[in-house]
Amino acid sequence: MNITLLHHTPLEVCSHAIRTCWQSFEKSDEGGDKDRELIDRVVNKYKHASTIEHLVYTFYIQGVSRALLQELARHRIASPSVKSTRYTLKELKNEEPFAEDDYEGASRFIVLTHNNLVDTASIQALNNLQAILKEGISNDIAKFCLPECYKTELTWTINARSLQNFISLRSNKSALWEIRDMAYMLFEKIPDEHKYLFKKSLY
Amino acid sequence: MNITLLHHTPLEVCSHAIRTCWQSFEKSDEGGDKDRELIDRVVNKYKHASTIEHLVYTFYIQGVSRALLQELARHRIASPSVKSTRYTLKELKNEEPFAEDDYEGASRFIVLTHNNLVDTASIQALNNLQAILKEGISNDIAKFCLPECYKTELTWTINARSLQNFISLRSNKSALWEIRDMAYMLFEKIPDEHKYLFKKSLY
Amino acid sequence: MNITLLHHTPLEVCSHAIRTCWQSFEKSDEGGDKDRELIDRVVNKYKHASTIEHLVYTFYIQGVSRALLQELARHRIASPSVKSTRYTLKELKNEEPFAEDDYEGASRFIVLTHNNLVDTASIQALNNLQAILKEGISNDIAKFCLPECYKTELTWTINARSLQNFISLRSNKSALWEIRDMAYMLFEKIPDEHKYLFKKSLY
Amino acid sequence: MNITLLHHTPLEVCSHAIRTCWQSFEKSDEGGDKDRELIDRVVNKYKHASTIEHLVYTFYIQGVSRALLQELARHRIASPSVKSTRYTLKELKNEEPFAEDDYEGASRFIVLTHNNLVDTASIQALNNLQAILKEGISNDIAKFCLPECYKTELTWTINARSLQNFISLRSNKSALWEIRDMAYMLFEKIPDEHKYLFKKSLY
Repeated sequence: MNITLLHHTPLEVCSHAIRTCWQSFEKSDEGGDKDRELIDRVVNKYKHASTIEHLVYTFYIQGVSRALLQELARHRIASPSVKSTRYTLKELKNEEPFAEDDYEGASRFIVLTHNNLVDTASIQALNNLQAILKEGISNDIAKFCLPECYKTELTWTINARSLQNFISLRSNKSALWEIRDMAYMLFEKIPDEHKYLFKKSLY
Repeated sequence: MNITLLHHTPLEVCSHAIRTCWQSFEKSDEGGDKDRELIDRVVNKYKHASTIEHLVYTFYIQGVSRALLQELARHRIASPSVKSTRYTLKELKNEEPFAEDDYEGASRFIVLTHNNLVDTASIQALNNLQAILKEGISNDIAKFCLPECYKTELTWTINARSLQNFISLRSNKSALWEIRDMAYMLFEKIPDEHKYLFKKSLY
Repeated sequence: MNITLLHHTPLEVCSHAIRTCWQSFEKSDEGGDKDRELIDRVVNKYKHASTIEHLVYTFYIQGVSRALLQELARHRIASPSVKSTRYTLKELKNEEPFAEDDYEGASRFIVLTHNNLVDTASIQALNNLQAILKEGISNDIAKFCLPECYKTELTWTINARSLQNFISLRSNKSALWEIRDMAYMLFEKIPDEHKYLFKKSLY
Repeated sequence: MNITLLHHTPLEVCSHAIRTCWQSFEKSDEGGDKDRELIDRVVNKYKHASTIEHLVYTFYIQGVSRALLQELARHRIASPSVKSTRYTLKELKNEEPFAEDDYEGASRFIVLTHNNLVDTASIQALNNLQAILKEGISNDIAKFCLPECYKTELTWTINARSLQNFISLRSNKSALWEIRDMAYMLFEKIPDEHKYLFKKSLY
């Protein structure tokens, strides 16, 4: 899994939004300690949670499974643009079949669980899919035998309020291991000066 | 695929909502022709589309693939409650492996494409998954080799505005065949007196 | 203020949705105690909050001020259809001016605060507005001198998750008094067998 | 009315998102003509509208009426942080009453319609409100006689998809004049290289 932060809103935009409500612009220190404390107080104490919706992050997330994608897509207050199997499965046509224990090789296409039984089953599925595509079967038919470990990627835009919710639910120890890893990695990729807004959301 | 309409809002609730804006309650005919024409005019001509959000449908959708679920979940203005692989994969433990051409038998668990190469690959994946679960591997690891044709089901609540959008995008001939079938079946299951609101959305 | 519940989803639809996830339909008692406890546990304990989005309520809310409407409209996960000043202000044309202390008479059009200074100022504004409309000034110009106590009404559809949030924020003692009254009245109008889902949200 | 663009996402983030779906990164020209045409084609022709949700704009909007705010707040896919009358009405306490034809002076606090009858009625309401606040009546009571022309301001974050919808509905000649002006001014303030995405939305 690899996550790159493509874009984010500066913290001052959020403190400006809050100061619009109270007309306290003259107390701002341009995104400094005073503004940071204000955001924390208003959002976390006063529950005026909508004020951090002004903070928006766009992440480029690579190498996650379509099993994870099933869960990520349930977070409806976010905008995902996802690598389409319908348009990109042809990438497998130029590959050779993988040996059933060539986990490293296959990991270009599948997320490994490090359980050999599972990963071998996934490699068999991957090899079957390759063969089917080489037969000229269309992606829209072939994709039905795709294993959920198949790697995908997405550009994902989410605001700070929805991201707090995501991290809080998905860093929990009852979450699926892969999305739990993702929640922690997202936290790492958040700009340092924004991290304090998400610390309490981490399990 | 099987779709059951579990609940829906009567049309009069929508005409009442529209008549609230103009205070024209005395012109109502209790969901009759006048009210029906009013809804059509306001929503489709005047583009006051929010007024049909009062019409809400809950469908119970069975026997669709997780490939379809990937697409359905992108319709974010809707509420899906989906059969969880994390909690229900154990259902496979009590099954015997399927013969690789036992399409009918396997169709209890997978959506068939009626391409033998693909369906046989899916049966192999299904049998592998069975064996893995019988080994005591946890669902959270085993699910990574699940083929996307695996059947799932959901209870899905969606309002008429979002459903118009769904039917319009997914009944299109460029849509994935399975979700296209679903769009047409949804239209069939909509109460007859509501159908006129969705006819133009059908491809 | 008057609130009428026009329509709601039965509780069984929600328990059916939850049982879809775990495939525990055989444990249902058709919306009885077992199902009710299940909903409470899943939503409030397990924080699987999306499952009560299947419960949708449509209220007809009359006699609230446009001051309240400003706050209500910020609850974005809901569908309001509101009496339009642009189309209905003509209702004032056939009225006679109100005596400046005719609070009861004026209360057909304005929400009283029971502070005489404020209510008299509102009656003056109401009389000015009447005179302006009788001069033939268009609603779109006249409405700019409308006092925010002017009574409006709406048909409002909201799901149980968003309604929990509404009641929790708006029944709080720091909320504006009128919307606080509304939060309590909404709670009263919720079907009795649904009330337990909202009790903890009340301040 | 004054609108300042506080922040926006660069166009390349959107073309990156689209290229994620088709894995066509190698065809990008870093936000140049090719990328711009791609966005237009995918959003406007292929109706893959969610891809421009990655483009997010934060505007600081000053000097609009609370009449306009009533309409703006109905655009639910956006994040407004609005100057609170409950916390800021005290600003009137230090003012002297305005002469009933001192339109220029009063325009610091109210949006003028340039109809003297209406604007004079608004000045009377403003003076009444001043007097009431000087009596020590709390903002939460006093605000009920506030005229809807009272000036407010907000920090408003909205994505390109929702902004297209806003401009299309609100630049229409049937829209309220003030919000129509706002729709045109928003268009002007959009970064030049983004304007082509909104041109067709303008009436």
